[in-house]
Amino acid sequence: MRSLASDNTSGMHPAILAALAIANHDHEGAYGNDSYTSQAVALFKKHFGEQAEVFFVFNGTGANVLGLAASTTSYGAVICANTSHIYVDESTAPDSFTGCRLLPIETPNGKITPAQVAEKIKGLGVEHHPQPQVVSITQSTEYGTIYTAAEIAAIAEVTHANGLYLHLDGARLSNAAVSLQSNFASFTTAVGVDIVSFGGTKNGLLCGEAIVFLNPALARNFKYIRKQGMQLFSKMRFIAAQFIALFTNDLWLHNAQHANQKAQELAKILQKHKAVKITQVVEANSVFAILPPHWITPLQAEIYFYVWNETTHEVRFVCSFDTTSEDLQKIERKLEELKTL
Amino acid sequence: MRSLASDNTSGMHPAILAALAIANHDHEGAYGNDSYTSQAVALFKKHFGEQAEVFFVFNGTGANVLGLAASTTSYGAVICANTSHIYVDESTAPDSFTGCRLLPIETPNGKITPAQVAEKIKGLGVEHHPQPQVVSITQSTEYGTIYTAAEIAAIAEVTHANGLYLHLDGARLSNAAVSLQSNFASFTTAVGVDIVSFGGTKNGLLCGEAIVFLNPALARNFKYIRKQGMQLFSKMRFIAAQFIALFTNDLWLHNAQHANQKAQELAKILQKHKAVKITQVVEANSVFAILPPHWITPLQAEIYFYVWNETTHEVRFVCSFDTTSEDLQKIERKLEELKTL
Amino acid sequence: MRSLASDNTSGMHPAILAALAIANHDHEGAYGNDSYTSQAVALFKKHFGEQAEVFFVFNGTGANVLGLAASTTSYGAVICANTSHIYVDESTAPDSFTGCRLLPIETPNGKITPAQVAEKIKGLGVEHHPQPQVVSITQSTEYGTIYTAAEIAAIAEVTHANGLYLHLDGARLSNAAVSLQSNFASFTTAVGVDIVSFGGTKNGLLCGEAIVFLNPALARNFKYIRKQGMQLFSKMRFIAAQFIALFTNDLWLHNAQHANQKAQELAKILQKHKAVKITQVVEANSVFAILPPHWITPLQAEIYFYVWNETTHEVRFVCSFDTTSEDLQKIERKLEELKTL
Amino acid sequence: MRSLASDNTSGMHPAILAALAIANHDHEGAYGNDSYTSQAVALFKKHFGEQAEVFFVFNGTGANVLGLAASTTSYGAVICANTSHIYVDESTAPDSFTGCRLLPIETPNGKITPAQVAEKIKGLGVEHHPQPQVVSITQSTEYGTIYTAAEIAAIAEVTHANGLYLHLDGARLSNAAVSLQSNFASFTTAVGVDIVSFGGTKNGLLCGEAIVFLNPALARNFKYIRKQGMQLFSKMRFIAAQFIALFTNDLWLHNAQHANQKAQELAKILQKHKAVKITQVVEANSVFAILPPHWITPLQAEIYFYVWNETTHEVRFVCSFDTTSEDLQKIERKLEELKTL
Repeated sequence: MRSLASDNTSGMHPAILAALAIANHDHEGAYGNDSYTSQAVALFKKHFGEQAEVFFVFNGTGANVLGLAASTTSYGAVICANTSHIYVDESTAPDSFTGCRLLPIETPNGKITPAQVAEKIKGLGVEHHPQPQVVSITQSTEYGTIYTAAEIAAIAEVTHANGLYLHLDGARLSNAAVSLQSNFASFTTAVGVDIVSFGGTKNGLLCGEAIVFLNPALARNFKYIRKQGMQLFSKMRFIAAQFIALFTNDLWLHNAQHANQKAQELAKILQKHKAVKITQVVEANSVFAILPPHWITPLQAEIYFYVWNETTHEVRFVCSFDTTSEDLQKIERKLEELKTL
Repeated sequence: MRSLASDNTSGMHPAILAALAIANHDHEGAYGNDSYTSQAVALFKKHFGEQAEVFFVFNGTGANVLGLAASTTSYGAVICANTSHIYVDESTAPDSFTGCRLLPIETPNGKITPAQVAEKIKGLGVEHHPQPQVVSITQSTEYGTIYTAAEIAAIAEVTHANGLYLHLDGARLSNAAVSLQSNFASFTTAVGVDIVSFGGTKNGLLCGEAIVFLNPALARNFKYIRKQGMQLFSKMRFIAAQFIALFTNDLWLHNAQHANQKAQELAKILQKHKAVKITQVVEANSVFAILPPHWITPLQAEIYFYVWNETTHEVRFVCSFDTTSEDLQKIERKLEELKTL
Repeated sequence: MRSLASDNTSGMHPAILAALAIANHDHEGAYGNDSYTSQAVALFKKHFGEQAEVFFVFNGTGANVLGLAASTTSYGAVICANTSHIYVDESTAPDSFTGCRLLPIETPNGKITPAQVAEKIKGLGVEHHPQPQVVSITQSTEYGTIYTAAEIAAIAEVTHANGLYLHLDGARLSNAAVSLQSNFASFTTAVGVDIVSFGGTKNGLLCGEAIVFLNPALARNFKYIRKQGMQLFSKMRFIAAQFIALFTNDLWLHNAQHANQKAQELAKILQKHKAVKITQVVEANSVFAILPPHWITPLQAEIYFYVWNETTHEVRFVCSFDTTSEDLQKIERKLEELKTL
Repeated sequence: MRSLASDNTSGMHPAILAALAIANHDHEGAYGNDSYTSQAVALFKKHFGEQAEVFFVFNGTGANVLGLAASTTSYGAVICANTSHIYVDESTAPDSFTGCRLLPIETPNGKITPAQVAEKIKGLGVEHHPQPQVVSITQSTEYGTIYTAAEIAAIAEVTHANGLYLHLDGARLSNAAVSLQSNFASFTTAVGVDIVSFGGTKNGLLCGEAIVFLNPALARNFKYIRKQGMQLFSKMRFIAAQFIALFTNDLWLHNAQHANQKAQELAKILQKHKAVKITQVVEANSVFAILPPHWITPLQAEIYFYVWNETTHEVRFVCSFDTTSEDLQKIERKLEELKTL
């Protein structure tokens, strides 16, 4: 089976499997008291700065929700895009675990603006209203778009000026770094992001995400929150070892470059067809496009992808570290065929 | 490093690693929509009965807490041993996620009795008091002891007679099955257990636990609870594949047999020393013993284990699928040496 | 001090005080086990139908939140107007107590439509998304507007057709009944409302609200939810006695008629001024109007009211059972004076 | 109907009713923005010290739970007597609202000791275990017993030495002050109590409790917690006015003196009978006694009271500000009659 449905339909990169094999010897302290975890944390500090505090969890929802829990109180509110994963795809996990309200901002491309954020920050100090405490952005966004470092800095400014924290859902942070031709710190640490969910699973890990506190004060009691949040892994070495592999020989970079590159190639294939309209600028590893309705099912039969919007016939393709030229050729051939029908 | 601190200081069994390698090809549907998950679920049904409903999660706390959430309301109470993992080792995850009160029963050996359960079931129907809704037992217990099927049946009887559900924390269920020389169903499905947390991690998996609803009515809305509980794995195939391997060629059995056997051997080694007092009957893969206080640190230097009770100098040794004869010989030799000092 | 800021700046109607005095004799069973509570419940059944199940609580937030808790699960969602009290004025009480997401509908006048509701009901059965479980409307709305019985019936239809419940925040239900010249049942029980928050405080009580389950299945375990929600009053007779008084000699009706009538009179006074623009149709006891900015402070000095929208200079006046002709004359005189400046 | 079942079966003291009548004029700011609230807060500061921060709520469960919420985090634990109201009589409100675990201490008389508290404070800093954060005591206790100031100071010492806060459930604080012949501050503020639930309802109010933060740092964000906890009263003046009356002419003192005195008289009546065994020292307004089983029902027919323990035939009598000599004479006469049967 081949799929462009999501970057989580892939397995793990061979180097990750190899890292698991290497880590699979002997005994190690549980719950992070092991040498792999120390080493992986050190690598994160190298990428994000020495002040970063790093905690590993199982999955992206865990990373996002627990990071928000560390920076909110139960009468708080979290400002986010109405397209964000925390708003759309994490059930009520953010709401029920933190007690907070999510305040969605309408956005056509997954990106929110400082002005929109400013407009949502109201009622501060008035107990009748949920108190805005965190702004959450996604990088790269759920629409495959990218915030520049300057755009994030501008959001951070309005966020901090009002006493809020800035959270960044980086389930696809590596794809963003590739797109910006930048290291991680320059569009996170350097521009005022307080908390990052650093995604591993969608960039070739078996499973594993990191919560990176760039504002270390927020990490003070986080070990308790992770445990209470059911995200403390006993055999932690196996997440840590994957991250070590991800940061070795720039695997994170190569995987994300590959995925982004394949998305560019796919976009080119689609653009050849007047009947197809690409709806979002392709900056990371996703391509959003409106297809002729009767093309969708036959094309899905070649290689699976999601219909994003049933009404407009917009679909989403997500490329991964293991998307192949053959995958794209299948699409190319089928589109040619469909065009002639 | 070698350790008898816990069965989670081990890595994974080689067959599990091999299963991950095999599952690591091509694309698969995410979130359990894959062929491995179907196959693994079928294997669980074979072991627990066709009516069983099975859901995979990351870790034991997740399994326990979500299973309890499926069988309680926010004004409920859960009756359990004061030594149980849910009471001692899961932070406030059970309390805060379910909203319930835990009602601990004092127990010297980790096992609760029907009479103790009956005594805790009070205030039913009176809104001022937390409403007992679930009884939770652990098998094998946190003290390495075992309930017989008849003992569980007797607890189930008082539990069900009062309208409560019976939950079983089976983080070490395989060790119990070995100890009872029994299949799983005969001391769960057959005797009235409603929900089982089936442990994989402590029996040789990288990570993975299963929530097995023997009372399928409780599973009706469970998929929402798992997602809200941040325990839905995108690359689910990698947990499922491990469970397939665990049920292939009776790996679960061999691993648990090995661990239990090593515990027996360790007990024999300890029993040779009059200065050592074994404090719990050794029925599964743990050995609890009181050591002369000045023996503890030097013995830990040979192979690590936990001091269970600082006051009484009781310690805990846990054997695993990969505990070696060399591990035990180290202890044997060191004890001989300590005796002569 | 005189105020048109809200109908909760009033005290209690003299008949309510008298009822408290009458109830203040001798001993009575606590927590609702008293004769006043039985009598008050019977009166509610007379108004809403014999199947109604009635529970008294302290305040409106308690009534709304606990009613929602009775009809949702922690992975649910509540569809409501973005102007609703539950969305705007109850902190995160609805979110944190129920665990649910609130899904706001944009509305210019406080009323939502069946089409808007239908649009929000999506993702049913998909665990990634909060599950819509309740639609909540306010009658009369926070903008002083009124749903007709037919409009509520139409919302109930789309609500029930999708398996959701219909909740009605009736903090000002009496004002709505007066406006519709109708009994309560005809626009609640008869048209498919499942749960009503029946407001007493804003219609002349010292304090007291009722949760009226028109769908009695939802009341089954509600006594536990009320207790857990910290809304069970020990000296319940004192809320019950107030409701008995409210339903005696149609006090509820006279109080609401008076408030609505004063709102009409106030609207007429405002309409005399071209510089003033009434922004919402005046159907209950509130008047919303845009004032010349420099008129606001001097007019507030005469009699206090809230600025609803700082940007547009929209203000809100709320009339109460004890709003006097003198109150309105103050406004009338001041407006004449301001006009000439 | 006459009752000794609880001090909440009484109505309100006539002076409280009079205070409601006086406060029932004109308009006042809502939610505590009124002159009564300021005045009542000032009176509390006079009694508890100027640094005290005071918030009014509806009921005792609200006071206790919100006070605990202000001093805990979701991974915390609250140490309390197993007889405490928060453990026995508040459903899961403390657990579910705070997320915390309650750690009960066995006590024969409602009082816990510093040594017991010290024993429960363990696992600090270890994320696997709920983190003890608050010790909660009740004064006077649920068994009508009293802590001396020195006893509270000793508990405060072990509490603070471990970084925990000391909470005091003072639903019957006035009865304690009378018993200790002391002002409030000398056994609260002066000895290290951080938070007091100050009871009004059981000492003659219609309804109303105060949360008094003697450690004002804990009050910093409390207004949000009160609102989120559904305990913010719109017509706050009516609770404030009652507290003003309670502190006027020492009404609190006279009411509690009366209740305590009646308990002493009742104890004397009971002590005349060898068949009756008083089980708790009578220090406040409750009397616990074991009655001959066949006396209970006929005595309850005279004046109602609760059977506290069905097994031992222990019963509880609670005297109130309005317990009369006639009430006690009924008991006296009936006991004489029962004795002769």
